[in-house]
Amino acid sequence: MVFRYELIKEDRDSKARLGKIYTPHGVIETPIFMPVGTRATVKAMTPEELKDLGAQIILGNTYHLYLKPGHELIEEAGGLHKFMNWDRPILTDSGGFQVFSLGDLRKITEEGVEFRSHIDGSKHFISPEKSIQIQNSLGSDIIMAFDECAPYPSDWDYVKKSLERTTRWAKRCKDANANPDTQALFGIIQGGMYRDLREQSAKEIIDLDFPGYAVGGLSVGEPADLMCEMLDYTVPLLPKEKPRYLMGVGSPDYLFEAVIRGIDMADCVLPTRIARNGTVLTSQGKLVIRNATYSRDFTSLDPECDCYTCKNYSRAYIRHLFNVNEILGSRLATIHNLYFLIKLMENIREAIKEDRLLQYREEFYKKYGYIK
Amino acid sequence: MVFRYELIKEDRDSKARLGKIYTPHGVIETPIFMPVGTRATVKAMTPEELKDLGAQIILGNTYHLYLKPGHELIEEAGGLHKFMNWDRPILTDSGGFQVFSLGDLRKITEEGVEFRSHIDGSKHFISPEKSIQIQNSLGSDIIMAFDECAPYPSDWDYVKKSLERTTRWAKRCKDANANPDTQALFGIIQGGMYRDLREQSAKEIIDLDFPGYAVGGLSVGEPADLMCEMLDYTVPLLPKEKPRYLMGVGSPDYLFEAVIRGIDMADCVLPTRIARNGTVLTSQGKLVIRNATYSRDFTSLDPECDCYTCKNYSRAYIRHLFNVNEILGSRLATIHNLYFLIKLMENIREAIKEDRLLQYREEFYKKYGYIK
Repeated sequence: MVFRYELIKEDRDSKARLGKIYTPHGVIETPIFMPVGTRATVKAMTPEELKDLGAQIILGNTYHLYLKPGHELIEEAGGLHKFMNWDRPILTDSGGFQVFSLGDLRKITEEGVEFRSHIDGSKHFISPEKSIQIQNSLGSDIIMAFDECAPYPSDWDYVKKSLERTTRWAKRCKDANANPDTQALFGIIQGGMYRDLREQSAKEIIDLDFPGYAVGGLSVGEPADLMCEMLDYTVPLLPKEKPRYLMGVGSPDYLFEAVIRGIDMADCVLPTRIARNGTVLTSQGKLVIRNATYSRDFTSLDPECDCYTCKNYSRAYIRHLFNVNEILGSRLATIHNLYFLIKLMENIREAIKEDRLLQYREEFYKKYGYIK
Repeated sequence: MVFRYELIKEDRDSKARLGKIYTPHGVIETPIFMPVGTRATVKAMTPEELKDLGAQIILGNTYHLYLKPGHELIEEAGGLHKFMNWDRPILTDSGGFQVFSLGDLRKITEEGVEFRSHIDGSKHFISPEKSIQIQNSLGSDIIMAFDECAPYPSDWDYVKKSLERTTRWAKRCKDANANPDTQALFGIIQGGMYRDLREQSAKEIIDLDFPGYAVGGLSVGEPADLMCEMLDYTVPLLPKEKPRYLMGVGSPDYLFEAVIRGIDMADCVLPTRIARNGTVLTSQGKLVIRNATYSRDFTSLDPECDCYTCKNYSRAYIRHLFNVNEILGSRLATIHNLYFLIKLMENIREAIKEDRLLQYREEFYKKYGYIK
């Protein structure tokens, strides 16, 4: 198996760590932010643009790709990498989160989840085996176990039952993985906001021995403090020699807090989604470009940024593009937001290297503002 | 005045001509197709991408830019080139065509046109002087006289009155141009589908001595044969030492027919508009990428094309992008369509150089099909 995590350095003042993940499609430096390419495209971007920004790995969504265009078609195309023209690492989720989010449209049993498509109402069934089979067809470098992410809030009894099923499903996923040598299957720790259940889940999942572990069930609507507390408690339960992935986190402040608690990987649609709505991340905090105040502002989105957008376009121009609904507006804002997070993680890695991560965080928050 | 047209070669077998237009922002090789950037952006494209495709000049639309973001704002930004980050030549239309297309929302008088914005219903007035003032603010290299484009069909009396007013307006435009040394004002020949009126318009407009002439009022719904007949008749009336611009033409077959009749420049939203609807131009004719027949077609859009899209993506992938409404679909199709036309014009210039234009046209039509 080519997959391997290399721990390079631990931070002096926090649990942050510098590392490398080796995959069949190349090496990833951690901590890393992973842009989301839900439907075989990171919205509004080409693969070359992503590389220019420094993206080292992207996500694909199993649920969406299963429905359209279908995993068999992607397999026929030579896999997801070839289909979408991306030759660096890809991580796919299990589809579990999306399927569970369907609410009334889905029914959970021990065997798996029956659901109706959000597109056309057609009936489908995804089991742990099916999820892995789909991900095997996609050919992603890192694949995720099919888990249940309990909603927030959920009571202790529900979360306990749910995490225990997640463990049984994790075992089935491991058994089902047809390409363990080329597709690294990560286990997912659940347990909601309960310390004892996080501990139980971590123990059970780690016992199954996966090449990497995700912390699931966080950033699902709980207060930031509670997420941090859960990370404080859960991450130290994970083995040092394996990468740790926090699912669904992508705001600068959450990324800082996650990294400082020992997280190596994170993903979120946030930077790309808010970009298409005209909200951009800057060193001074978020900026809503449609605001009239920017109509004659000929400065760049972020004076401290040196991305393509900031080097070539003014706030006034980008505001105009959004005002008249031009695709280039979404493109320029997406480029900026992804660059902002990718560069932030680069700076974070540099700061860990130089034992000044906490200091860098303070400097960043002073201008950007902070969640708590 | 830096503006100059250089006639390099006349075709042996047709009225086609090879030339160069010198502008303050660089040289344009003719015959040329000009992509349209209505609202300070060629839809879905960056300026760098346009340059990579070989675009030498683009269009801007005065009516749209006047309404949003406003020409004063663009002037404040340093002009349209700087505002949109495009440093090659720009041609702007006069706004006349858009304003006349407003139907019930506009009222024409000798002084100009009163109209209501299609966006918010606000009242505006554009006169020949105002159109030129707006274009002076935009700072485009080639600006167009404010004319009336008579609809098709229109009776002889109406067209005669209309072209005579267009002549009076052309004179006022010339007098109004504040930057004759840096912004070349083109006159527009009208006259509908009437030979005598085309002749009258050509005579009157040429008498005013403009650095270039456009043939207006064609490609407005008349049969292809009639357009060709009007070109056959009108273009020879124009002086050889000035560039000739056919407005609103952008399908491969129309471009061939126009060039063969002595046209040097043409523009149209067609390639970019149909691209966003998923229709692409290929050497075998148009292709509607959403068709189910392409769902598992892993070949490129056009096997004879070497654009970025065709080098990297399959029909199946592009169909998927359109099926799930992803921006990248519009981007890839736009890149392909613009490349197709820009490359076609490059080939046409090469064919004129080598006295084999008519032969090239036959070869092209054999595969692509033909309008008539």
